[in-house]
Amino acid sequence: MRWFKLTVAYDGSAFHGWQTQIHEPTVQRRLEDALRRATSQQVRVTASGRTDAGVHALGQVVSCAVDTDLAPETLLRALNANLTPDIRVVRAAEVPEGFDAITHSISKTYRYWLNDGRIPDLFWRHHAWYIPQVLDDRAMHCAAQKLVGRHDFRAYQSAGSPRKTTVRTVTRLDVERVLVGETELVRLEVTADGFLYNMVRNLVGTLARVGQGREAVDWPAEVLAGGDRRRAGPTAPPQGLFLVSVDYPAPWLG
Amino acid sequence: MRWFKLTVAYDGSAFHGWQTQIHEPTVQRRLEDALRRATSQQVRVTASGRTDAGVHALGQVVSCAVDTDLAPETLLRALNANLTPDIRVVRAAEVPEGFDAITHSISKTYRYWLNDGRIPDLFWRHHAWYIPQVLDDRAMHCAAQKLVGRHDFRAYQSAGSPRKTTVRTVTRLDVERVLVGETELVRLEVTADGFLYNMVRNLVGTLARVGQGREAVDWPAEVLAGGDRRRAGPTAPPQGLFLVSVDYPAPWLG
Repeated sequence: MRWFKLTVAYDGSAFHGWQTQIHEPTVQRRLEDALRRATSQQVRVTASGRTDAGVHALGQVVSCAVDTDLAPETLLRALNANLTPDIRVVRAAEVPEGFDAITHSISKTYRYWLNDGRIPDLFWRHHAWYIPQVLDDRAMHCAAQKLVGRHDFRAYQSAGSPRKTTVRTVTRLDVERVLVGETELVRLEVTADGFLYNMVRNLVGTLARVGQGREAVDWPAEVLAGGDRRRAGPTAPPQGLFLVSVDYPAPWLG
Repeated sequence: MRWFKLTVAYDGSAFHGWQTQIHEPTVQRRLEDALRRATSQQVRVTASGRTDAGVHALGQVVSCAVDTDLAPETLLRALNANLTPDIRVVRAAEVPEGFDAITHSISKTYRYWLNDGRIPDLFWRHHAWYIPQVLDDRAMHCAAQKLVGRHDFRAYQSAGSPRKTTVRTVTRLDVERVLVGETELVRLEVTADGFLYNMVRNLVGTLARVGQGREAVDWPAEVLAGGDRRRAGPTAPPQGLFLVSVDYPAPWLG
């Protein structure tokens, strides 16, 4: 048995999220099907975390144990040959026995794209949240800075997937207006030691209210302190969200 | 009757090209349907040129005559409210009587995206041509410069839509490696007074052979001089192609 760390990118548009469901296409099922075809074994994969339907990944990390002689690069090519074009294994590395993509992760980075202004950029319709007014991205960034640090984020947790503790450490939460090609977008990037259910999308929905001028810059921090989900903004839609990367300590650097 | 110049963006992925066909979704049909709903009239639209199935537009120009009191900005909003999210009217202007998007155009600019390298960027799969090796973009640019000017481009014309003359003036043909977000792509941009059928895609397919090191830098110019389509490279696939803009002289500047 050899242990592999696979870094996987996918376009969540056509998937019902990560986790295998009986009748729906999921990323997990496609990856396990590809592993079966590439190695003639039934292999179970574990991702760093589930992504919801419509959420994308640039660097989801997956652990699996496979009885194979294939070199990691050969396994990568064999998997990609058996995957649809909306999933790609972008990196494959052999790691020490026992690697678990969930429990060994020490931090994750997510990105969320907002497309603001009078007319939506239709080429971003599946990869950004369109808001039909110009957002004050600087106000959003200022508001976001008050959320950085170790806090109880239960006000930003959706019901449905309770965690033992709702305390998380956000080490970075940046909002910036950037030019991607010829399209101006507002990009939010957040790194934390872990995330509660829908935490990024709830942060985005709340910060967007500040960007729209409907709430003050201090409001998201007040919502945090209040600890009441009902006071926060709406959950931003899934299609703007990308899991960018997952960090691991040695010996799981891969 | 008032005359309008509409600038239209669309994602060609779901369309069977521009021109109305009986049983297929086309951009023309969607636009005429939206005009009918917005103005309660049967309006016929004319585009600067047809785009093939899968080809995109950032600035297709459309002319139409409508019996309406709506201001251009109001017409734009009414049309967008009646269009699917993969088509947007990005500009609407009233122009003098008789404006014809085909015959009055003086030049067009197209862009073609190539995604090269070991692993495709899956987020570009519907908007670029993936070539599984690193292209020599500088060799492609050098080769392209020899095609700029007034020439008989019949070697770069596909059969199926013959033109009276195959002489065209290419004023610009640039190939450049650019960073779009975090993705490195090779971008070709070409401006000419007109294009033959599949001319851009045939130029791209031919220049790509130079980028792959399979043909010399002088080869595309030799193909041009030879005047024989069979000597040129393959027709590049449609999904990398974008109609960027169409230029008009006064009084049709809009």
